[in-house]
Amino acid sequence: MDIQQVLELIHSEVLPFVPKGKVASYIPALATVPPNRLAICVHTNEGVVYSVGDVSIPFSIQSISKVFGFTLAYKILGGDIWKRLGKEPSGNSFNSLVQLEHEQGIPRNPFINAGALVISDMLLSLYPNPQQVLLDFVRRMANEPSINYNYDVAKSEKGAGARNAALAYFMKSFGNIQNSVEDVLDFYFLQCSLEMSTLCLSKSFQYLANHGVVPSTSEQILTISQAKRISALMITSGLYNESGDFAYRVGMPAKSGVGGGIVAVIPKKLSICVWSPPLNEFGNSLVGIEALERFTSYTGVSIF
Amino acid sequence: MDIQQVLELIHSEVLPFVPKGKVASYIPALATVPPNRLAICVHTNEGVVYSVGDVSIPFSIQSISKVFGFTLAYKILGGDIWKRLGKEPSGNSFNSLVQLEHEQGIPRNPFINAGALVISDMLLSLYPNPQQVLLDFVRRMANEPSINYNYDVAKSEKGAGARNAALAYFMKSFGNIQNSVEDVLDFYFLQCSLEMSTLCLSKSFQYLANHGVVPSTSEQILTISQAKRISALMITSGLYNESGDFAYRVGMPAKSGVGGGIVAVIPKKLSICVWSPPLNEFGNSLVGIEALERFTSYTGVSIF
Amino acid sequence: MDIQQVLELIHSEVLPFVPKGKVASYIPALATVPPNRLAICVHTNEGVVYSVGDVSIPFSIQSISKVFGFTLAYKILGGDIWKRLGKEPSGNSFNSLVQLEHEQGIPRNPFINAGALVISDMLLSLYPNPQQVLLDFVRRMANEPSINYNYDVAKSEKGAGARNAALAYFMKSFGNIQNSVEDVLDFYFLQCSLEMSTLCLSKSFQYLANHGVVPSTSEQILTISQAKRISALMITSGLYNESGDFAYRVGMPAKSGVGGGIVAVIPKKLSICVWSPPLNEFGNSLVGIEALERFTSYTGVSIF
Amino acid sequence: MDIQQVLELIHSEVLPFVPKGKVASYIPALATVPPNRLAICVHTNEGVVYSVGDVSIPFSIQSISKVFGFTLAYKILGGDIWKRLGKEPSGNSFNSLVQLEHEQGIPRNPFINAGALVISDMLLSLYPNPQQVLLDFVRRMANEPSINYNYDVAKSEKGAGARNAALAYFMKSFGNIQNSVEDVLDFYFLQCSLEMSTLCLSKSFQYLANHGVVPSTSEQILTISQAKRISALMITSGLYNESGDFAYRVGMPAKSGVGGGIVAVIPKKLSICVWSPPLNEFGNSLVGIEALERFTSYTGVSIF
Repeated sequence: MDIQQVLELIHSEVLPFVPKGKVASYIPALATVPPNRLAICVHTNEGVVYSVGDVSIPFSIQSISKVFGFTLAYKILGGDIWKRLGKEPSGNSFNSLVQLEHEQGIPRNPFINAGALVISDMLLSLYPNPQQVLLDFVRRMANEPSINYNYDVAKSEKGAGARNAALAYFMKSFGNIQNSVEDVLDFYFLQCSLEMSTLCLSKSFQYLANHGVVPSTSEQILTISQAKRISALMITSGLYNESGDFAYRVGMPAKSGVGGGIVAVIPKKLSICVWSPPLNEFGNSLVGIEALERFTSYTGVSIF
Repeated sequence: MDIQQVLELIHSEVLPFVPKGKVASYIPALATVPPNRLAICVHTNEGVVYSVGDVSIPFSIQSISKVFGFTLAYKILGGDIWKRLGKEPSGNSFNSLVQLEHEQGIPRNPFINAGALVISDMLLSLYPNPQQVLLDFVRRMANEPSINYNYDVAKSEKGAGARNAALAYFMKSFGNIQNSVEDVLDFYFLQCSLEMSTLCLSKSFQYLANHGVVPSTSEQILTISQAKRISALMITSGLYNESGDFAYRVGMPAKSGVGGGIVAVIPKKLSICVWSPPLNEFGNSLVGIEALERFTSYTGVSIF
Repeated sequence: MDIQQVLELIHSEVLPFVPKGKVASYIPALATVPPNRLAICVHTNEGVVYSVGDVSIPFSIQSISKVFGFTLAYKILGGDIWKRLGKEPSGNSFNSLVQLEHEQGIPRNPFINAGALVISDMLLSLYPNPQQVLLDFVRRMANEPSINYNYDVAKSEKGAGARNAALAYFMKSFGNIQNSVEDVLDFYFLQCSLEMSTLCLSKSFQYLANHGVVPSTSEQILTISQAKRISALMITSGLYNESGDFAYRVGMPAKSGVGGGIVAVIPKKLSICVWSPPLNEFGNSLVGIEALERFTSYTGVSIF
Repeated sequence: MDIQQVLELIHSEVLPFVPKGKVASYIPALATVPPNRLAICVHTNEGVVYSVGDVSIPFSIQSISKVFGFTLAYKILGGDIWKRLGKEPSGNSFNSLVQLEHEQGIPRNPFINAGALVISDMLLSLYPNPQQVLLDFVRRMANEPSINYNYDVAKSEKGAGARNAALAYFMKSFGNIQNSVEDVLDFYFLQCSLEMSTLCLSKSFQYLANHGVVPSTSEQILTISQAKRISALMITSGLYNESGDFAYRVGMPAKSGVGGGIVAVIPKKLSICVWSPPLNEFGNSLVGIEALERFTSYTGVSIF
């Protein structure tokens, strides 16, 4: 069975799981997405693309954007990035303040909300216009100039974002936010509002699957070591409080978003994106995890 | 020895403790107060006043204002006030978010910062101009029309108030703040900026010492039961995480502020205020506690 | 209305609350007590006794024994007792390990289980036979030589006592238990198994109501200051995580037990014991609290 | 450079790090091990062995035994094992009770102490003589019949093991320990006392490096899926609260012990064991981590 056939098989097998999840409803823009959207796309490092389902429909990438933001800051700051961030799994729900209090305003890792807020704060200090830098980066990685923020979504998010505001002010009280909280939140929510298709997301993660180099253009985004290390962070912390279970069931470095997307990589082999809006109790795409578990089982690819 | 002699004895005995404490330094207005200011004032329910030291110098009452705010809200809402607030001691440092997370945005009691923010939010919903209502109330209780907010202090507080902003946004994320966080913080910091002398503070707490009635005017502020209950709240929660120790050492319902003031009452007998700026590790006036412990020892008054 | 009439009125008013509570069921000896037992007894410092209901039926005093154990240790150690114990309210459910971990094995106060285990450990170090010393003390205070431990209850408790074992081992890991955990648990559960009637309990707390002196014999058990301070500890921590609410509603220093007893005092006036087995969600006698709230309302006695 | 040369280079490079760590000192048997012991051994799946340093000297494997215990229980119980255990990183220090309380006695994962105690309890229920079963298993995996427990070490551990006793009793209070706590602790400490050489440990982990099959004997210990999943658990939780950092720096599934050993695998390629007694602040071999980081850097092997 080749990969295309595998994707088609998975597509048919996981559709029945759709009613078991719940589409994110805290903002209208997410709540109104049809729950039965389903798309899977694979990019191999050799440049072959496999896909099935609604792969060209853009959706809100939400927390998947945390990988892009982290990449941009890490590229510049290197190991210095860890002065204001940890790299340990959070061991708590993804926006918990308890750990943050215990650890004096240093977020556990860059993929929980608190960590991504610190990254947003870093980017605001590093670039005069980080909004444009991030957008350019994503467009280039996906080779798709039409990718954009959804300003309405960003605005809704902010309206519903009291908890993220609490996180940011709390870190500021420990001195770990340097710009104004207002600016940090604005940029954070803007980046979460990025809309990309399954196809674009899969393509845009090729640099991680290919040890830091974009296969089609040979552009070196990160060093080999840096690319490996982002994969390590993704496997220990990419799916919030379900990261351990995901590593156990699926065995791929991955990052999820409440829009229902999950992007994963097999280093040296391929990147993959699945999109299905209904979420499980941990805020991860329920069908997405089912699909990815089947993908590693059926193809035998895995990092372990 | 009569009360006046007791106060004078205490004054001389506690002065040597001044260097053991540390004046609050998070805002300039507090940091620049001379540390050796010391004042003690007693108002008996019969109308006799005893005093020693700098009793006429106004200082920042800070958290003592929480009692005034609570009185105003409690007077109107009665038992309904407990729908959004607890009445248990906090068991943690006074601005901890851990407990707030565990208890879903319901602050443990009205005298920790989170609780006072909820009270501020309630007052904003109850009155068109709660700033003026609170000021009028305090002026009337102290019989001193010159009492006022210090707007510069309120502004400095807000600039240093990221942690209180975090608390407010966090409670808003649980639905326990109804007005804008901005407005709640503004009112909260304004009320903390109230400046009153030791004499005025002691006088203004007579309604609590006298079961709800201002002795000089016979104005009924609270019912007997309500006045007793505020005393109960003060004894279990009035001195942050040192409340148990204070009840043990001193045995009076009391409320402290980081400006160095502590107000206490012996129900049916008297109200007392001590002011000495240097604080102990719990944020309470170090000399103030020494003075109040001596006061109950030397006079034998105590609720136990 | 005199006190006897008040007790009779309360008795009739609170009986309907019996079905709202739940008798402790974790050991058979407690589970089989008839839920509608109800007794109230008052001893004034002048020596007058008022009582109503099943005042002569012995019941398991459970955590009320913590006051007796504390008194014995405090009498000898005085302020040194606080080297291994705190005096702050717990702010958590009564057998939580979280706070104990955060505070390095030092229990918050002597009336939570962890604190009482430390007291048991102290008594084991202070006396060759603390079991007999405690029993003698209680018999003398109650003037009732037939009072005894219930060894079957102690044994059942230990069988169901994994959580207390966890607490004791945990404190041992911090060096705050000096005897063998086995011995500490045995003594702790034995003391909890003491059986006393409402009449005896009320009488045995007279030394606390009378500033340390047993009124009938003039025996000085504690200094005035020590007696006041135990009252202070009781008002801030005597009813587990309901202490603040109890102070607010009832306004008396008190200690409860899961056997359904509550003992309270009005310093300089009287001691009172109520017994009704059904408990509320906090593990305190539901009817007992209703009765005590009425008692302070109807008589107007209160510490506030 | 071949692997042997790499090991020799690493050996010389990491020796200077020895003084930076601290040998475990809570029991004499560990405290007296010479700190400058250093050994590295690699077994490839093809059967080639590379080694350098003190590879034949047995040491206390301590928590590395958790992988053996887990393997035995998982082999029989399969997915049912997760009814009493989680698979998420702990996010706290390795013997914290906080999380255990919050999660009702269900340990976060099998590699923290609480989890290993549950596994010990399971093995006690599964086998009449689990001590012998475990020993036989380890001897067979290492092909070394002289491997044995050190009963003196087990006894010392128990004497110093109040915290583990607290963990076990605490879980028992939630119903998650079924045998007597005494038996569970005895078995747990016995298994931690296993003594093996670096050579034996490296060899004994080949079944994990080779997808469940012992290369030399073709014995199938686990299914491919089970072997991969143990690797997944090791990468997210194998080094206590340093797991994320280890994945980031080294990128191998691994398990450490306070005896100074770390075993790691590259699935489908090799197993490796490093031994150096001095520990870092997280309780992991400081030099061991330095060595493994160099190993993946110099050889380029990595799961990412």
